[in-house]
Amino acid sequence: MPERRGEYTVSLSNRPTVLSYAAVGGKKEGQGPLGKQFDAIFEDTHLGEKTWEKAESALQKESLTRALDKAGLSPSQLQYLFAGDLLNQNIASTFGLREMNVPLIGQFGACSTMGQTMAMAAIFVDSGAADLCGAVTSSHFCTAERQFRYPLEYGGQRPPTSQWTATASGAVVVGRAARGVRVSDVCIGRVQDMGVTDMNNMGSAMAPAAADTLAHFFADTETKPNDYDMIATGDLGLVGARLCRELMEQKGYTLGDNYTDCGLLLFDRDTQDVHAGGSGCGCSASVLCAHLLPMLQRGELRNLLFCPTGALMSPTSSQQGESIPGICHALLLESCP
Amino acid sequence: MPERRGEYTVSLSNRPTVLSYAAVGGKKEGQGPLGKQFDAIFEDTHLGEKTWEKAESALQKESLTRALDKAGLSPSQLQYLFAGDLLNQNIASTFGLREMNVPLIGQFGACSTMGQTMAMAAIFVDSGAADLCGAVTSSHFCTAERQFRYPLEYGGQRPPTSQWTATASGAVVVGRAARGVRVSDVCIGRVQDMGVTDMNNMGSAMAPAAADTLAHFFADTETKPNDYDMIATGDLGLVGARLCRELMEQKGYTLGDNYTDCGLLLFDRDTQDVHAGGSGCGCSASVLCAHLLPMLQRGELRNLLFCPTGALMSPTSSQQGESIPGICHALLLESCP
Repeated sequence: MPERRGEYTVSLSNRPTVLSYAAVGGKKEGQGPLGKQFDAIFEDTHLGEKTWEKAESALQKESLTRALDKAGLSPSQLQYLFAGDLLNQNIASTFGLREMNVPLIGQFGACSTMGQTMAMAAIFVDSGAADLCGAVTSSHFCTAERQFRYPLEYGGQRPPTSQWTATASGAVVVGRAARGVRVSDVCIGRVQDMGVTDMNNMGSAMAPAAADTLAHFFADTETKPNDYDMIATGDLGLVGARLCRELMEQKGYTLGDNYTDCGLLLFDRDTQDVHAGGSGCGCSASVLCAHLLPMLQRGELRNLLFCPTGALMSPTSSQQGESIPGICHALLLESCP
Repeated sequence: MPERRGEYTVSLSNRPTVLSYAAVGGKKEGQGPLGKQFDAIFEDTHLGEKTWEKAESALQKESLTRALDKAGLSPSQLQYLFAGDLLNQNIASTFGLREMNVPLIGQFGACSTMGQTMAMAAIFVDSGAADLCGAVTSSHFCTAERQFRYPLEYGGQRPPTSQWTATASGAVVVGRAARGVRVSDVCIGRVQDMGVTDMNNMGSAMAPAAADTLAHFFADTETKPNDYDMIATGDLGLVGARLCRELMEQKGYTLGDNYTDCGLLLFDRDTQDVHAGGSGCGCSASVLCAHLLPMLQRGELRNLLFCPTGALMSPTSSQQGESIPGICHALLLESCP
């Protein structure tokens, strides 16, 4: 049952476990260092659909269908789907998942969505509110660029601090099991806003939220960074991850070599022209489902502190002079072989 | 603890209770039949802010602050806020609530958001994942019109099936208590899409979702419509509520005089030029918090089946030829004096 642990953390004792997972991505993601670990790579950015938005919906349908198939489950066996994305009114999720015919609880956490959906699924399963839940999210470079920035045809210059929105989706199925990768603790973050207004420097806008959540988690659980085989924020990129280290140092925690960021894992920054790294809901989602969950499953990691971050802004809020609030949710995932 | 009851319903036995609530609205809502029941009416559509979006954020801050004040609570005593709205990337919620400094779990359910946020709060409290949660949502006529339809200055004609987006916000605080208005059952809906494409006929697009969820709830709980003092969908308006009655009849359930719709309660259709009725996340939220919860609290209603509905579309999905998927979540609220 979920139990409060310290001020911000909830411990889950009823063995909510990742029963299966899948990651799908686009051509650029396929060319990156994790390319071969994806369940499927789509060379066509349209996935055969008429629009990029419909293509992003197709990514969610693909990742969830593949995750269900691996567990030998049909959609009707899921009691809830927790899903969200970056598109206005969450249309990637709604239209991608509507045929599943599963009760849908739409989530919005910007690029932290994989953490938020998985946290909700784990808490629901742990509490008995559900036996089986799906958690899924996506992003698409082309839908994000035209919604948040410029038409792709405009060919706008991107500064070094900017990140590259992943064309990818990740899905997990959470149920109760004796073995597997367990969701042991969940720490939901508070909105942190340090006044950053540069839409091309999301990493810096989100880093304070990552540091806030990490510090709360360590305090609540009376642990320290080197108690974990890996701590993966996402998607702070190079600039944000450096700032996160600094902010944690100021809070009295040293993040060692076990610290990384999903935005740094998805692409090869030296050869793939992604500037500060990857971003988008699909970045941490696909890094988790293509790379990190398999490492936990194989026992190469005994535990992982998965801490996806989100920038809770819109073009309208930025045009109206607002700064960019960040959020970060932390999940402790443990390998239980 | 949350316990599955039938295929779609979860029963909550640990007394998750509405500790306090508040509703705030705009001038038109103040002139409506429920006007005097609001906690505050703001004559200025800007609430002293520079933009309508910031005004909508202010509505959320106002309603939650007033709900907390009534319970003698400070924001820091809340463990989670479940919040969402209709604006792109949920900015009304993020910017309205960021200063609360409470862990935020952003929700998206379009006009069903009050039901979704309250369901999440109740399940979290029931399970022990939290002791105190807030649930809040809002809408604003001016932000919705310019985002979903036309610039207000354009003065577009509105057909008779169209609804009027409420300028309003409702907030509830959920905790455990021996007495008060209890959330006893939650039935989360599935996306239902019957192919309606008319953005000016949302009621018809959402009615099938309301009928689907109501029928599931009655089947799961082995009850019938006249077991409830009131069944309130929201916000189907006149056209959608009629269709909901017809669809329920086809499913073998007769909705009697105890059936109403939040979109029909908020405004006086004869004198307020709202065509088919009210809509927007703030409509069912403010009808609940200004009118229905007080009736439960006073014992004038022993129970209420609160069933807010949402249309999960965006202007982009409509421009790309998609139909309008609907969703509806049902909560059984019981008066425990």
